[in-house]
Amino acid sequence: MTRTVYVNGEYLPEHEATVSIFDRGFLMADGVYEVTSVLDGKLIDFDGHYARLERSLGELDMANPTTHEDLLEVHRELVRANGIEEGMVYLQVTRGNPGDRDFAFPPEDTAQTLVLFTQSKPGLANSPAAKTGIKVISIEDQRWARRDIKTVQLLAPSLGKMAAKRAGADDAWMVEDGHVTEGTSNNAYIVKDGAIITRGLSNDILHGITRAAVLRFAAEAQMQVVERLFTIDEAKEADEAFVTSASTFVMPVVSIDGAAIGTGEPGPVAKRLREIYLEESMKAAI
Amino acid sequence: MTRTVYVNGEYLPEHEATVSIFDRGFLMADGVYEVTSVLDGKLIDFDGHYARLERSLGELDMANPTTHEDLLEVHRELVRANGIEEGMVYLQVTRGNPGDRDFAFPPEDTAQTLVLFTQSKPGLANSPAAKTGIKVISIEDQRWARRDIKTVQLLAPSLGKMAAKRAGADDAWMVEDGHVTEGTSNNAYIVKDGAIITRGLSNDILHGITRAAVLRFAAEAQMQVVERLFTIDEAKEADEAFVTSASTFVMPVVSIDGAAIGTGEPGPVAKRLREIYLEESMKAAI
Repeated sequence: MTRTVYVNGEYLPEHEATVSIFDRGFLMADGVYEVTSVLDGKLIDFDGHYARLERSLGELDMANPTTHEDLLEVHRELVRANGIEEGMVYLQVTRGNPGDRDFAFPPEDTAQTLVLFTQSKPGLANSPAAKTGIKVISIEDQRWARRDIKTVQLLAPSLGKMAAKRAGADDAWMVEDGHVTEGTSNNAYIVKDGAIITRGLSNDILHGITRAAVLRFAAEAQMQVVERLFTIDEAKEADEAFVTSASTFVMPVVSIDGAAIGTGEPGPVAKRLREIYLEESMKAAI
Repeated sequence: MTRTVYVNGEYLPEHEATVSIFDRGFLMADGVYEVTSVLDGKLIDFDGHYARLERSLGELDMANPTTHEDLLEVHRELVRANGIEEGMVYLQVTRGNPGDRDFAFPPEDTAQTLVLFTQSKPGLANSPAAKTGIKVISIEDQRWARRDIKTVQLLAPSLGKMAAKRAGADDAWMVEDGHVTEGTSNNAYIVKDGAIITRGLSNDILHGITRAAVLRFAAEAQMQVVERLFTIDEAKEADEAFVTSASTFVMPVVSIDGAAIGTGEPGPVAKRLREIYLEESMKAAI
């Protein structure tokens, strides 16, 4: 089936969906994005993603070319048109096409670019990977200083994912100044003696929408949450490890750099958090 | 006049030049670029730019979708078609359009994207700015760790240029761990007691094609060249400062963070280097 995608007000067949070569997203990575999951045909935490989109735009002095209401409508229309039961909606906003290339921002009346498309992922909630857990390697964090802004400057994560593949692993945890920052497209956690440990928010990591929800659900379930730095060595000695993201929810990590974590199987905390997250998120889905 | 641009084998009017929204250049900044200057209708240091393009591609495990001969032909055809006497030819290579979004690289047989366009800049060699010099501010270097690869991840330089504009300056010098790395789109130099001082090559800075030529010409002219780290404070106490890039050649810097450098006018070393660079480069232009 040919996907229907959205580009600047138009619903188009995916093969006709283009942007100018002068789009600043293409020439300068001058764009931000969000990925919202779909379960049972409904959007998970749309409000959280919209709020973060507004924050990313604000941090880059980029205008918001849409509204909560309109964007929700486009999400829903794409989900409907493409018959998405489980999957994702990707959205990207760029500073648009000024007609030429210049490091300086274009005039404020330059039309921005707004692109959305769906990805169908049947079985997302019942992912086999969630049952076996994933393997990660550690790599140096080579990204720019503002990982809190969800920009399309994704070369380092992409290279990290390929390094993981070459090493026979599924993903990579990035390390800076000796401490884990996060995974290539997810936030990273360890569990030790019942406490859930994850790096605190700063410009060093993405402010995960799923992270915020999971930590809230964990606190509500009387689990102990500690936001602090941790090392790969500490992670290897942990009882459990896991990651969270909009598209993987809560995903157990069973080995790091070849060392089994805990029993080498998904642990009870990660499994419980995944259940709670899916249950609560689906209840609140719109 | 409507520019003729080049996209994947076709010469097109600029308004028809597009790439897929699934192009990895647009979604992930998974692309590299080069800018070659044109003077007297001829290409300046094409071989240097081609060699660096090959290096950038290699560092990212990206194939080279073209050859020296074919790329030279496209450059020349665009210069001819657009009547460029002075200006630039921009080229960008991306990992292409795999038809969907994924952090992992697409299959190796995925067609890459090759885009080129010209920018006409009459008066480039006789730039008024070269006579008055430019003003720079200093900012933190927020870029990723591999500045030696000429990727399109240009948000930090773009933000830096805007910070400079807001401060009433022309450009910004980026500082990391207390030392100047480079300008937003150029290499940075100071002159003290006749010695030309610039940061040595590493992953921390772009390996400027103009930098290499200027340092070679300086050595041939018996000028002393010292490749080492320097600070903004040291720069403020220098006799001269300047930057080099493919599109500005050698450009004097007359103030840093509001402090006049030397006499506050372009200095003799920068002026002499600009003359030599333009003379030698135009002799060798093709």
